[in-house]
Amino acid sequence: MNATNATNGANASGTNATNITDPEAVLERIRFTDAGLVPAIIQQWDTREVLMMGWMDAEAFRRTMSEGRVTFWSRSRKEYWRKGDTSGHVQYVKGVALDCDGDTLLVTVDQIGAACHTGTRTCFDADVLEPALGASPEIEAADL
Amino acid sequence: MNATNATNGANASGTNATNITDPEAVLERIRFTDAGLVPAIIQQWDTREVLMMGWMDAEAFRRTMSEGRVTFWSRSRKEYWRKGDTSGHVQYVKGVALDCDGDTLLVTVDQIGAACHTGTRTCFDADVLEPALGASPEIEAADL
Repeated sequence: MNATNATNGANASGTNATNITDPEAVLERIRFTDAGLVPAIIQQWDTREVLMMGWMDAEAFRRTMSEGRVTFWSRSRKEYWRKGDTSGHVQYVKGVALDCDGDTLLVTVDQIGAACHTGTRTCFDADVLEPALGASPEIEAADL
Repeated sequence: MNATNATNGANASGTNATNITDPEAVLERIRFTDAGLVPAIIQQWDTREVLMMGWMDAEAFRRTMSEGRVTFWSRSRKEYWRKGDTSGHVQYVKGVALDCDGDTLLVTVDQIGAACHTGTRTCFDADVLEPALGASPEIEAADL
């Protein structure tokens, strides 16, 4: 019976719970800051908009990996903050990746409504700067 | 003559230098960490891939705003690091935005070659995790 269940893949609730990565094994290779936090970039899975950045401690990471919802650690309020619980602007987890040196997470989500507490779709919509633009010289691209 | 030049827009080098945002005015509203750094998410401008995250101090931000190339502060080497100077994997600046609470930058770039020092296109390609997936209930989306 156990062997059958193990190879079955899907479970009764329809989630992929039998296949998920064990968060504890990942925690060993996350390089948290001295404050015990890791930055998490949140990206809309289909449009690929960068929605916001938040911070997670080990427990927020565990919850995000296991609940299908993104949980942050709020540095200002010093409490867990499951995105959307008060605003309704839920972030449903679509994917998680850890970067090459283990100090940044990329979480792809399906964002309901506005990601930003100001009501804009992303947290980067309101303060757009005008840098000096760089242009790729044709010769440089061709040399690679 | 000055008035004519000021309304002209383009300059002899073909950059948009006459229209760029003054970095000093932006520095006043960036909330740097205690270490004097701000995280910068780097995104490919057209495919919208999240390529990497790096850190900037005030001077790295000034250079990124004015040079058309992305410069970071390397926390491990404790030096400025203009992306591509040694690897050839240049990041040409396409846009910069500051987030709603002033503590994260989003820099869109044209990335030449691999963004990651390991040789992969992005820093998030190698350690892809399998979280429990969240699904948007139809009723929740309709309620908003």
